[in-house]
Amino acid sequence: MGWKKLGSEELHRGRFLSLRRDQVVRPDGSTGTYEHVSVHDTVRVVALDTRGRVLLVEDDFYLQGRRMLHLPGGSTDGQTAAVAGQRELAEETGLVAEHLEHLTTLDPMPGITAARLHLVVATGLTPVANVVGRDATEIGMTAAWWPTSEAVAAVRAGRITEAGSVAGLLLAVQRSSTS
Amino acid sequence: MGWKKLGSEELHRGRFLSLRRDQVVRPDGSTGTYEHVSVHDTVRVVALDTRGRVLLVEDDFYLQGRRMLHLPGGSTDGQTAAVAGQRELAEETGLVAEHLEHLTTLDPMPGITAARLHLVVATGLTPVANVVGRDATEIGMTAAWWPTSEAVAAVRAGRITEAGSVAGLLLAVQRSSTS
Repeated sequence: MGWKKLGSEELHRGRFLSLRRDQVVRPDGSTGTYEHVSVHDTVRVVALDTRGRVLLVEDDFYLQGRRMLHLPGGSTDGQTAAVAGQRELAEETGLVAEHLEHLTTLDPMPGITAARLHLVVATGLTPVANVVGRDATEIGMTAAWWPTSEAVAAVRAGRITEAGSVAGLLLAVQRSSTS
Repeated sequence: MGWKKLGSEELHRGRFLSLRRDQVVRPDGSTGTYEHVSVHDTVRVVALDTRGRVLLVEDDFYLQGRRMLHLPGGSTDGQTAAVAGQRELAEETGLVAEHLEHLTTLDPMPGITAARLHLVVATGLTPVANVVGRDATEIGMTAAWWPTSEAVAAVRAGRITEAGSVAGLLLAVQRSSTS
């Protein structure tokens, strides 16, 4: 590793994200600072039924100022990807998965945060016994089953843009077509 | 849109990233704050030769504490994706592309930043006339041509984890196999 950390200070601590500034030695030997964001990992769930369909949800994203179509998921809140994936699936779609399988783990913005993005495949879906409440940001969310070919077409058409949803859909489809 | 912005304040302004706190009305009508990061968009370049190979680079990532294999690219520094893509390609691989085509644009972490991730396909590659210097963070970077099938296998094996590289490789391969 060409980088060295000399020290670190917290510039801001928020409820969901914090900002730090590290003193570093860069790969070329020069010294400087590196500011980065601390935030919980994210999980996205590729929920598949037995008819080759995948579950997509849609809700309003504040920073983008528009509705976004994406795989169920959200912040892990510090939980494991499996526990957080089941929680988000229940909250957003009312379903619980019998099987959860780790697909891969991505680095969504490795230049600004060490936070990771976990992709899991969920199968054996049944309605949850107890209705779980959505949080204040998820009111108005809708969920629907999509044929996987149509979901991939939506990725290619630029209708699905959230990085984890794009990677999760393409990887799951690619895997099923070659297994 | 279920969200409303009531106001905004800057909590920190850094050289590469800034942190803001907005006063918002959430989709359920409650009021609160929303902290988010401002940073330039990123571009990743799927550089393809005429023999079905793709260019991958590898260098040390500070926050991950490891070398990462990824598509050439980096911050747009406020430039267009095409201009920034050519710049990063030249800096990181010594090549210039005759054709640059927009593949898609992703939202890498839409919950914490509006910054986008542009994916472009580069073809017609030739060595740059004038050698361009790498920046201080890119010393030790290596570049190599990979058969696209091996690059996809590296994604599936978890060896390529940067979200833009994963999505760019899978989309470009998927497109070429169905066109």
